Amino acid sequence: MSKKTTIYDIAKKLNTTAATVSRALNNNPKISESTCKLVRETAAEMNYKPNKLALALQSGKSGNIGVIVPRIDSNFFASVIRGIEDELYPDYHVIICQTHEDEKREIENINTLLNAQVDGILMSVSNVTSENDRMIKRVVEKNVPLIFFDRKKNMDGVSSVTINDYDGAYLATKHLINEGCTRIAHFSGDRSLEIFENRFKGYKQALLDNEIEFNENYVFQTKSSVEAGRAAVEKLLKLENPPDAIFSSSDFAALGAIQELKEHGIKIPEDFCVFGFGNEPFTKFMELSISSVDQSPMEMGEMAAKVFLEQLNNPKNLKMEKKVVLNPELHIRKSSSRHSL
Amino acid sequence: MSKKTTIYDIAKKLNTTAATVSRALNNNPKISESTCKLVRETAAEMNYKPNKLALALQSGKSGNIGVIVPRIDSNFFASVIRGIEDELYPDYHVIICQTHEDEKREIENINTLLNAQVDGILMSVSNVTSENDRMIKRVVEKNVPLIFFDRKKNMDGVSSVTINDYDGAYLATKHLINEGCTRIAHFSGDRSLEIFENRFKGYKQALLDNEIEFNENYVFQTKSSVEAGRAAVEKLLKLENPPDAIFSSSDFAALGAIQELKEHGIKIPEDFCVFGFGNEPFTKFMELSISSVDQSPMEMGEMAAKVFLEQLNNPKNLKMEKKVVLNPELHIRKSSSRHSL
Repeated sequence: MSKKTTIYDIAKKLNTTAATVSRALNNNPKISESTCKLVRETAAEMNYKPNKLALALQSGKSGNIGVIVPRIDSNFFASVIRGIEDELYPDYHVIICQTHEDEKREIENINTLLNAQVDGILMSVSNVTSENDRMIKRVVEKNVPLIFFDRKKNMDGVSSVTINDYDGAYLATKHLINEGCTRIAHFSGDRSLEIFENRFKGYKQALLDNEIEFNENYVFQTKSSVEAGRAAVEKLLKLENPPDAIFSSSDFAALGAIQELKEHGIKIPEDFCVFGFGNEPFTKFMELSISSVDQSPMEMGEMAAKVFLEQLNNPKNLKMEKKVVLNPELHIRKSSSRHSL
Repeated sequence: MSKKTTIYDIAKKLNTTAATVSRALNNNPKISESTCKLVRETAAEMNYKPNKLALALQSGKSGNIGVIVPRIDSNFFASVIRGIEDELYPDYHVIICQTHEDEKREIENINTLLNAQVDGILMSVSNVTSENDRMIKRVVEKNVPLIFFDRKKNMDGVSSVTINDYDGAYLATKHLINEGCTRIAHFSGDRSLEIFENRFKGYKQALLDNEIEFNENYVFQTKSSVEAGRAAVEKLLKLENPPDAIFSSSDFAALGAIQELKEHGIKIPEDFCVFGFGNEPFTKFMELSISSVDQSPMEMGEMAAKVFLEQLNNPKNLKMEKKVVLNPELHIRKSSSRHSL
């Protein structure tokens, strides 16, 4: 297997130009009927398959939408994608790329999708380097509609669909306070990303509003993984005055925290409460189910797709920038319910 | 926002042909230098960006690989994709489509990827209708390398990477027998798919080899979902002689089974053992951890990518068909361990 037959191969064989072959295959009236026939026959012999993409290059529309996410193996991103697909199907087909949180791959993914001639890109950013900003701006300059969801950048002319991370964090922290927790730690994720910074701010403000002192030693920038959650708890428990609760920006880190706390014989929720973020399915499956903030991912995906369609139908010279913010919802479960469930 | 500027737009503006514009942009010596300059300037004014895809149409290589999976929100498929990416990066970029087990979408995904000019397609099939066979054969005819992984079809000239599902099922069932279970039910999935038929056969043979009667009433074709597992257990418990174990072809159905059994006050593993398939992360996370068959998904992805590269470097007229079969591995956990752990 190697190269596909192209119109250039056919042109070479017939000792004519690619333009003539292209016209003949498209039944251009400028080309004689006999030439059209010869080209078609030769194309068939050479197993040439005209592809829709060549036509798309002319019409400027491929019917494909690109989605870029940090990872696909999270229920959150998988559900957002499901929402996008549900909204756009069958008019548009979704192709997905993941960055694994790697900024170099993010750029490559953008290039990959542009080269695949997508009619739009919906993305959740992995990082905030200005190198990638330039690349993302290229998309906008190419007049390819671009929508951010969940993890956005503030960029002129680019719409976004997010949830109110600040509120989610504030409400979750307030709940822990209401359950009687007074030394609440926070796993914050990478705070150079807006979503994590906003969750941190919501957490902090809830403490201040309830006259609980903010303690910097209680804040850890953890990755969204079970291992990171375990490691952070190990450090927290070594503090002189260890916390009695964690509000984690990640369900995976919350799960790791619970595993580690149990291994230290700490009772949840009696002695220690844990609250996650993301409402991953496993938070519900666990015997000790994990409280979490739901981000309405299906709705977020549907909304991002709607904004894309709106943008697509926008007159060319009209700049549109739409910011949609969804409300988070608390799911209170065993890991933080001292009083009742 | 609407159409991207194409060479046709530029040609119209300059009152010339698209072929001339194309040649001018590619510095074809047939075109005068002054025309080349005019075309380039006009292209810049109109914000035309030559794209690599147009070049790819000529060279027959895009550097993109398409992966089609039934769903992305399963650790198994996400891990296979990770394996593929690790093997091919940075030479090839992976774009992903999901079918949601829908045969119509499977065909559309193939078209989407062919139109996006991928250099190869790695897929796990969702169904076995002959309509889709024709479509898949088109890929092979187009000389686009095609590799099946996990869920394959038997198709001439198409390579595949799978695990030995029969062995995995046989060993899991044998383990349940060794734990003292004698009335072992089976959740089989859609047996028109080879993987599920092979798991069923392995299950059945393990019973026969250990002089346990095969009971058709104990076999359910369930979907791979928590709800399906719950519903199947409800039916099993109504049988005159209910089973004392389940070997489930799906971890999700196994989880549902456990939830339903617990609600009926049945003790696991003392009174009832459960064994899953797929080794999804939650099987390990649960307090009552779930025994499962691991399918080496990373390795499967890496292997599928290697077979793709091999095929790509194959001389055009040499037909290659390679069948790689990986060995499954049992992960014995609490849900099936009466004797020890």
